[in-house]
Amino acid sequence: MSGGGPIDFYFEFSSPYGYIASRLVDEFGERVGRQITWRPMLLGPVWKITGQAPLVEIPMKGDYSRRDFARSARLHQVPYRHPGKFPIGTVAALRTFYWVGDRDPAQARTFAKAAYTAYFADGRDISAAPTVVEIARECGVDGAALATALEDPALKERAKREVETAIAAGVFGSPYFVVDQEPFWGVDRMPMMEQWIRTGGW
Amino acid sequence: MSGGGPIDFYFEFSSPYGYIASRLVDEFGERVGRQITWRPMLLGPVWKITGQAPLVEIPMKGDYSRRDFARSARLHQVPYRHPGKFPIGTVAALRTFYWVGDRDPAQARTFAKAAYTAYFADGRDISAAPTVVEIARECGVDGAALATALEDPALKERAKREVETAIAAGVFGSPYFVVDQEPFWGVDRMPMMEQWIRTGGW
Repeated sequence: MSGGGPIDFYFEFSSPYGYIASRLVDEFGERVGRQITWRPMLLGPVWKITGQAPLVEIPMKGDYSRRDFARSARLHQVPYRHPGKFPIGTVAALRTFYWVGDRDPAQARTFAKAAYTAYFADGRDISAAPTVVEIARECGVDGAALATALEDPALKERAKREVETAIAAGVFGSPYFVVDQEPFWGVDRMPMMEQWIRTGGW
Repeated sequence: MSGGGPIDFYFEFSSPYGYIASRLVDEFGERVGRQITWRPMLLGPVWKITGQAPLVEIPMKGDYSRRDFARSARLHQVPYRHPGKFPIGTVAALRTFYWVGDRDPAQARTFAKAAYTAYFADGRDISAAPTVVEIARECGVDGAALATALEDPALKERAKREVETAIAAGVFGSPYFVVDQEPFWGVDRMPMMEQWIRTGGW
């Protein structure tokens, strides 16, 4: 079981279930003896392919989802205040993650957790690039260099490729995990994934 | 915990996850000390409201779903052969369930399980009314009386009201459970529902 390949952890910064997963995934990785590769992506381009829409905009499902975001957060003891502006565009956070990660992967994970907490617990609007830079700075990132990088077409291209790679891997939701070529969609499938890893699948 | 109100178990006869739930729900009810009220409904009218489509027809999600139907069935040790014709219209099975249930609720549950098994394990096309009548007959139902009833506008109206009631209750998927006014969507949320019942919620 341990010593196996890493778990790809795909997530969108505007996803409540991705946020909850971000709070669980480190301990999960330790428990099953796997590294976690954090891979933020965007759901907007996915929805163009699938014809889907944000959960909260879907009749009936929207009401259930709003209730379930909060209920799931309480279950996992994760602080949660449903953001006033939701969902949001998260391309600034996405680009920041990959720019930081190319320099310091551990710092990028720290930033991802901080950005999620800022949005889903502290009510900060992470769709705004200056807010993202501020959060990154709070994580020890060079804010001036980041602000410059965020204007660089090369970084935009870099982040876009990551989204394309996720889509090519079949990622259509958040969180979405792939381990040993097996996909698991949703924070509520983490127990199934754990069983899969422990047993070698069925 | 025990002695609480019943669990409403909503399902659509063409739903693989509803089928899996139908195999788990009796033992579930015993474990948590609750009665189960079986409430078949139709997803077609729901999709008209939500703008959704059958899972397998959604790009990306379709591939995942086909894989997950079989994987979830194996996990729960439920026989599963993905039907050649899928999804199907299940109004004949729906009407049969309520007609039988008005006379003998236990027999209606037996019929529901038999219809699900016929479709998802034995490859029988339960969209055809004669096949449904045959399955009901195998469960001890008076086939001639049922065949006549299936042509009766009163039964059509009866079944339609059940679907409307489900939609009014917020049911947008299958399986969908409501216990103590709390909704749980999906066979993969049965553990959460169990925890909810045992703890009184959180």
